[in-house]
Amino acid sequence: MGWSQGFIAVDWGTSNRRAYRIDAAGRNCAEFEDDKGVLSVGDGGFPAAIGEIRERLGDLPLLLAGMIGSSRGWKEAPYVASPAGLDEIAKALVWAGEREAIVPGVSFVGGGRADVMRGEEVQLLGAVAAGLIEPHGLVCHPGTHNKWAIMRDGRIEEFRTVMTGELFALLKEHSILSDLLGAPVEVNDAFRAAARHGLSNQAVAAELFGVRARILLGLAAPEEAAAYISGLLIGADVRTGLAGSTPGRVAVMGRPELTRLYAAAISEAGGEPFELDGEECFLAGAIKIAERI
Amino acid sequence: MGWSQGFIAVDWGTSNRRAYRIDAAGRNCAEFEDDKGVLSVGDGGFPAAIGEIRERLGDLPLLLAGMIGSSRGWKEAPYVASPAGLDEIAKALVWAGEREAIVPGVSFVGGGRADVMRGEEVQLLGAVAAGLIEPHGLVCHPGTHNKWAIMRDGRIEEFRTVMTGELFALLKEHSILSDLLGAPVEVNDAFRAAARHGLSNQAVAAELFGVRARILLGLAAPEEAAAYISGLLIGADVRTGLAGSTPGRVAVMGRPELTRLYAAAISEAGGEPFELDGEECFLAGAIKIAERI
Repeated sequence: MGWSQGFIAVDWGTSNRRAYRIDAAGRNCAEFEDDKGVLSVGDGGFPAAIGEIRERLGDLPLLLAGMIGSSRGWKEAPYVASPAGLDEIAKALVWAGEREAIVPGVSFVGGGRADVMRGEEVQLLGAVAAGLIEPHGLVCHPGTHNKWAIMRDGRIEEFRTVMTGELFALLKEHSILSDLLGAPVEVNDAFRAAARHGLSNQAVAAELFGVRARILLGLAAPEEAAAYISGLLIGADVRTGLAGSTPGRVAVMGRPELTRLYAAAISEAGGEPFELDGEECFLAGAIKIAERI
Repeated sequence: MGWSQGFIAVDWGTSNRRAYRIDAAGRNCAEFEDDKGVLSVGDGGFPAAIGEIRERLGDLPLLLAGMIGSSRGWKEAPYVASPAGLDEIAKALVWAGEREAIVPGVSFVGGGRADVMRGEEVQLLGAVAAGLIEPHGLVCHPGTHNKWAIMRDGRIEEFRTVMTGELFALLKEHSILSDLLGAPVEVNDAFRAAARHGLSNQAVAAELFGVRARILLGLAAPEEAAAYISGLLIGADVRTGLAGSTPGRVAVMGRPELTRLYAAAISEAGGEPFELDGEECFLAGAIKIAERI
């Protein structure tokens, strides 16, 4: 490992951050999470925010991934064009200080589309390097912005973002459907039926109001609305991700409360999902990048 | 006219209200609009809110349409099942007082779908009665919740709500795309290209993030984003409304700043839109209902 005394890996997002102390043997031996996301730190505040991490986890070099490398972060780390693997990512690290390396995001341009990611690349490449997924295959990475990535030869070949998580949050917090979306989403009959509907009909804006109408007319139970709307959005998302191909094995990576929903919808589409914990993949990726420093 | 001295027609929505004094000859001779929508009045406040209207427009009977008849309004007016015409609506008026009639909404259940409207029925039936649209045909009524209605024999036969207006507002006010959506939406090349894209691909959640990505990568101009995203959502909406049929003449009814956008997207789909001012249709419908009292 380039940083032979160990290092601190930080997954620094828009609204929160998670930091892990990795020892010289590559073990995660201390960690914390807080709500000091990039947007809450702001201009000029990053040296102090970094100091705070070292106070809690030790005076070690830092590998920083996620929105910390965006234009709203500490120092902008330009996107690496896909196909991108660990070598390309490690070569394009941006140094904010002598011991603070920022991981660049990855961009995709092709087929009339363009897309970007920041943070997910560490998990995707870490999962391959750790043997958790094959070097070829389809990966679904749910979150605020779900990413569907096609891996080839262990690199990120192509990917597509679907804004499902953010849309669900907007509907839950600010829409006419808010009062129906308070319940936790479960994989139940309502979820599965809605996922099948979303898989065959992606016109979600035309389906959402009908959920409320059915309840107003006494044709559906309000308790089922949250699972139904989540299923509808995720079903439409999965149809985009599978892109008409015969689904085989699909890795679903991220937080368990989200991966189980996507896995259920992928099953409804006839695919064979297997779930991976995003944190484990992140740590594997961070260690592999640090080895290349 | 049942109310021979004239009356006051009120289109009372969730967040605002518009009131019109109609004289004995059926002319609109005074009006006002304010932000005292149903949600801002609340329990017990309606008699005072009604008194205020009479102070401004005269001591006349009131015909109240819109969300005022919902469970959050003054007195609930149960939905009239479609097919619904002026006679069915007039028979189902709910009287909140001796001189205060509330117009019921209309419901649709069929083909595995359910839907409701409150307020638009006055405009739709008024347009037919005034000869502004044919008794048979397709009507698009954009707003927070766009309604596609099929008229038959002068009645509302079937309809479908698409939440396009609310989704655009959520994206504009609360999403990661907010900073791109401040510009007014124009019918320009970006709008038309996006409308064509939405017409052929309704997976809007999969397209939205790409707009931001293209800008981040320098492949698109931020000034075009608002028109593009509006076009995308409206194109997908129009595809739902046309439902695969060969589009002919389509009436587009509502506020002019919205009808022109939908008319442009309907033209891109090969239809022949013609625009109608929603206020004129509302007044025509209110007069026809009052005649039946």
